[in-house]
Amino acid sequence: MRYGIGVDLGGTSIKMGLFTGNGDIVDSWSIKTDVSDNGKNILIDIAKSVSVKLAMKGIDKKQVDGLGIGVPGAVSRGIVDKCINIGWDKVDIVKELEPLCGIKVYADNDANTAALGEYKCGTGADYDGIVFLTLGTGVGGGIIYDGKIIQGFSGYGGEVGHIKVNYDETEPCNCGTCGCLEQYASSTGIRRMALRRLSKGDEESSLRSYGEELTTKDIFIEAEENGDKVANEVIDYAMEMLARACADICHVVNVEAVIIGGGVANAGDFLLDKLRKEFERKVKYIAGDTKICLASLGERAGIYGAFYLTKM
Amino acid sequence: MRYGIGVDLGGTSIKMGLFTGNGDIVDSWSIKTDVSDNGKNILIDIAKSVSVKLAMKGIDKKQVDGLGIGVPGAVSRGIVDKCINIGWDKVDIVKELEPLCGIKVYADNDANTAALGEYKCGTGADYDGIVFLTLGTGVGGGIIYDGKIIQGFSGYGGEVGHIKVNYDETEPCNCGTCGCLEQYASSTGIRRMALRRLSKGDEESSLRSYGEELTTKDIFIEAEENGDKVANEVIDYAMEMLARACADICHVVNVEAVIIGGGVANAGDFLLDKLRKEFERKVKYIAGDTKICLASLGERAGIYGAFYLTKM
Repeated sequence: MRYGIGVDLGGTSIKMGLFTGNGDIVDSWSIKTDVSDNGKNILIDIAKSVSVKLAMKGIDKKQVDGLGIGVPGAVSRGIVDKCINIGWDKVDIVKELEPLCGIKVYADNDANTAALGEYKCGTGADYDGIVFLTLGTGVGGGIIYDGKIIQGFSGYGGEVGHIKVNYDETEPCNCGTCGCLEQYASSTGIRRMALRRLSKGDEESSLRSYGEELTTKDIFIEAEENGDKVANEVIDYAMEMLARACADICHVVNVEAVIIGGGVANAGDFLLDKLRKEFERKVKYIAGDTKICLASLGERAGIYGAFYLTKM
Repeated sequence: MRYGIGVDLGGTSIKMGLFTGNGDIVDSWSIKTDVSDNGKNILIDIAKSVSVKLAMKGIDKKQVDGLGIGVPGAVSRGIVDKCINIGWDKVDIVKELEPLCGIKVYADNDANTAALGEYKCGTGADYDGIVFLTLGTGVGGGIIYDGKIIQGFSGYGGEVGHIKVNYDETEPCNCGTCGCLEQYASSTGIRRMALRRLSKGDEESSLRSYGEELTTKDIFIEAEENGDKVANEVIDYAMEMLARACADICHVVNVEAVIIGGGVANAGDFLLDKLRKEFERKVKYIAGDTKICLASLGERAGIYGAFYLTKM
């Protein structure tokens, strides 16, 4: 029997999956991410955990075709440029991890990897080419075209969270420019816009009772379940911004489906209906056949996609 | 000796090139585009012209590996959706042209084809992946990634002229939406913005002497050679809009080079310097290594690219 391994490296935990050669999951587990000393133990911890798991399962490393890993930074030729939230500067993942674990290693950006997971095993399996957007603390993205990840020449392919959707913005994004999608459609962004809206007027809104404790989840609840006008308008605005970016993406790569994942996507059809309405207004006949759908793998997208990196 | 043919189908003329199998040009010529009767003679005319040329050169059709053709519309699986300026509705180019000329046919959109030409034989030959923008009456675009055209699932890949760069625009674009790049960075768009600017104020400007006869070329001459303030600001604004689209494109596909062609690009470095300045402001560390360059093949990009369609 042949095997493969998928690893999803995050800021707090490292998720791992053991797969058969044809992609059936055998086991999944996770370990804590040790960010001490600029994350210098991370690759060692991964190698150890993999070795232990294989030994427990009675699998020889020679039976393992490859280990794929998604990391939170731009990856080009196996090298990640910088991963701020795990303390890494430039790291040659392939070169460092291969000798540690004795298995062939394939690396890519985490959002690209999750996109590949959704494309191979999730919602994306029904479509010819996809863009996957993950709306969490930030906005990540990955594009699968012609069956492959668009990694880009320096690893920034699918970096769609930094598409500009508002040229009047004055507050800067983490990237140093203003008006990025991430500033509006991430959970942080939606909350930011709600607080900004509340502070600028004195409209009545059930959101006011939350004060500074307000979360993005609260905003969705107040919008959908309690029909709060301000909450609905805040979400409408976020979906208008997301639709702008999706339309621009489709005018570049004309994918068959836009797939929305991440914590914010838990709002489901309530969010999708708003997004679809705004998107259709922006594409008219061009790229107008593109579907907008929800991701289906949740947090597992990363390990599935990482496994499929070994099959590219 | 093996041969290939490249055809660039435009609204007024059809440019054709005969190439050796390894891409050296043997001959190039053009015929008039007969748009009468919804362009029903166009493919017949192409087949006839090719047959005559091959006979004149003493080349047997069996020596010709393929004929590539770029057409002014979105192409998917050899079928073009609609070509307004030559009167075509949906046309299955491959199916109709192959029996007419007795040569294997490959079809794509004209801007995609020109992008492939620049990538194979022009400025793009130095780069790993490119976006080619052609600034003419409209704004066309093509993206080459991983050595191939991004055609998209319904043929609208690289349709970057319709990326939204101004969300405050109230005049509609030809596509039915507002604020498309084409409304600002095409020759029509630059002229439109100049006339709008002149009509809205009474600033002194050498552009006023042209009246309604003003052309985009005049605007560039007045800006570069005569230092007219309004003309410079009009071009700065067009380049700001073009930079917005280029930044968005690079956040999607992260190509190594953005290549600018078309009539407007005749302004050369004067235009490029302005564009680069605005682009760099918008990308910061992300995709910041992307080069901005001028196309080098001019109108020949189409036939070169069409020939290379046969090699894909």
